[in-house]
Amino acid sequence: MNTNEIFANQLDSVYEIQISRGEKMNALTDAMYGSLVSHLNYAENSNDIKVIIIRSDNKHFSAGNDLADFLETEFNNESNVIQFLRAMATLKKPVIAAVGGAAVGIGVTMLLHCDWVVACDDTKFSVPFIKLGLTPEGGSSRLLAQRCGTARAHDWLLTGRTFLADEALSCGLVNKTSASIESTWGDAQILAKGLTKSSLRALTDTKALLKADEIDSVLVLMEKEAKVFASALKTTECQNAFNAFLNK
Amino acid sequence: MNTNEIFANQLDSVYEIQISRGEKMNALTDAMYGSLVSHLNYAENSNDIKVIIIRSDNKHFSAGNDLADFLETEFNNESNVIQFLRAMATLKKPVIAAVGGAAVGIGVTMLLHCDWVVACDDTKFSVPFIKLGLTPEGGSSRLLAQRCGTARAHDWLLTGRTFLADEALSCGLVNKTSASIESTWGDAQILAKGLTKSSLRALTDTKALLKADEIDSVLVLMEKEAKVFASALKTTECQNAFNAFLNK
Amino acid sequence: MNTNEIFANQLDSVYEIQISRGEKMNALTDAMYGSLVSHLNYAENSNDIKVIIIRSDNKHFSAGNDLADFLETEFNNESNVIQFLRAMATLKKPVIAAVGGAAVGIGVTMLLHCDWVVACDDTKFSVPFIKLGLTPEGGSSRLLAQRCGTARAHDWLLTGRTFLADEALSCGLVNKTSASIESTWGDAQILAKGLTKSSLRALTDTKALLKADEIDSVLVLMEKEAKVFASALKTTECQNAFNAFLNK
Repeated sequence: MNTNEIFANQLDSVYEIQISRGEKMNALTDAMYGSLVSHLNYAENSNDIKVIIIRSDNKHFSAGNDLADFLETEFNNESNVIQFLRAMATLKKPVIAAVGGAAVGIGVTMLLHCDWVVACDDTKFSVPFIKLGLTPEGGSSRLLAQRCGTARAHDWLLTGRTFLADEALSCGLVNKTSASIESTWGDAQILAKGLTKSSLRALTDTKALLKADEIDSVLVLMEKEAKVFASALKTTECQNAFNAFLNK
Repeated sequence: MNTNEIFANQLDSVYEIQISRGEKMNALTDAMYGSLVSHLNYAENSNDIKVIIIRSDNKHFSAGNDLADFLETEFNNESNVIQFLRAMATLKKPVIAAVGGAAVGIGVTMLLHCDWVVACDDTKFSVPFIKLGLTPEGGSSRLLAQRCGTARAHDWLLTGRTFLADEALSCGLVNKTSASIESTWGDAQILAKGLTKSSLRALTDTKALLKADEIDSVLVLMEKEAKVFASALKTTECQNAFNAFLNK
Repeated sequence: MNTNEIFANQLDSVYEIQISRGEKMNALTDAMYGSLVSHLNYAENSNDIKVIIIRSDNKHFSAGNDLADFLETEFNNESNVIQFLRAMATLKKPVIAAVGGAAVGIGVTMLLHCDWVVACDDTKFSVPFIKLGLTPEGGSSRLLAQRCGTARAHDWLLTGRTFLADEALSCGLVNKTSASIESTWGDAQILAKGLTKSSLRALTDTKALLKADEIDSVLVLMEKEAKVFASALKTTECQNAFNAFLNK
């Protein structure tokens, strides 16, 4: 299940998962989603781990789904990508994302399930599903508005436009920005270390209360999104958009 | 049903509805609501239309309900004003509002159902229901807090105070401000044109997901608001406030 | 029930409740919660009162629960502290808080039930439950995110860190900041006086609509929070943290 494009290391009780496919701007394949799920499950179940960091080992966070790989994989409710999003949505332990460069599609929607996001000043965010004829996933059709306001969510998802780190900061998508990718990773590690002073019980009980209201309905929404997404995938519009993208 | 105080024109797949009663700061009458509903229905049902713009043809957006006209019209759950708000709340196609000058009462609450709002720097917003002894309508008792935060919603609705374009921008009521009413209209048209590059399916599927969670409960809330509003209308306080306003 | 550490005075139809225990930074005891409930009930039921102000008579708002007193009091669903939070959550009349200096724990979570918060520039806010091994209360596990955004709520509740008045203002926890504690109290009084121009019916009907959606589910959530809180109180971690705090 594991690929060398996802790896992790543990420092004290902090588990740091890294995406390592810099030559493709960390575009995510089915195998990589599978590996991410394994690492998340391991971290969630290990008594030695209190906090999870998700980052990459290069200047980009993730260009999103690898489209060529995606076209070769059956998409359904048990796909690795869906299992990954479900794992993120249901994590009991605090999770910090450290991002930079390209943060596209699922590279943004996965952030909506993180407790903190720290971003390098150079980050270019977008949720450009509509440019491929696709529709929102990962709970973003609710969580983006909840986190960043109705106006931004409708704007970003209906236009698919790129937005920069300062806009992401001003509307609460990210908690903090930093000048370099190295200092961004450092900020995430400092924050994680601070959290480990609290007990796992206090951390997970607090996070559980913060999510208690809506975790069930977010999972239902994600299933609904996945159905609309699957049906969009079958349209000629979407297939043409994929081909145009892959041949450019 | 149509009046010449509401008119519309279509450019490619953009349908632009204009309020044209500048001598009364575009105060809205029962007949005008009826006409707005007709235009919205037309736009919603036409296969040639992808995006709707709502604006006026003069420097004001709308001073809200025309109180003199309102007093002469029976208010109930099938009133044109209620049908208009329901049509706005349930629109499947993206809608952009371009506002300036006075944006009062329903001139603000209708914005809560728009996907984008662009505003001229000179816009003066208010939801002064309480100053007439009235109560929130159009879903604003939930949607204003959801869009602009709890603190602003309670402030604006309980005091009825005027607020300016920069405050509206900073809290996400509007997406963008512009120096003149002409550039505000232009911004709305540029945005609309950009959206028409996407298919109607992708636009409406995305908007449907963005609203999926709450459209039903918003309609229930609007009915509740209308009942409280109707009962407020019958109070001496409200009738005195109307008379004072009309005689000033 | 009343203690001299809580007192109130009425000016026209404004009822001003003051916390008066400056030597302990207005830390709240069981007896003080009981007195606050009495005052809130009195204000809620008096036909002469339209608006409530909550403040202190010294530079601090409240350092939160008095831990020594808390340890000597049985904590359950009918405790005075729970009755106080329930009274705040269900108030029908508008309530304004004026804060300064220390605003800690319940000194912040009670603000989430206020219609306005004005804060002195020197205010230091925190919700440091986790530093004592405790968990969120007062509806804060939902209301803090709703009012200030998901990113801040997770940050503040999971780290327990202190934040200042400008951060509280920028994310909508407070409506306005002021240079001195005297001008903060003055701002609250000016705002209250403005509100009294409206009828009690219009004020309470408007507030009822603003809270209609969620008051029931907030009360359910508060009961859930109280159960988790009670179970956290029994842990060795929490008892050690209390002892360390009391002996420092």
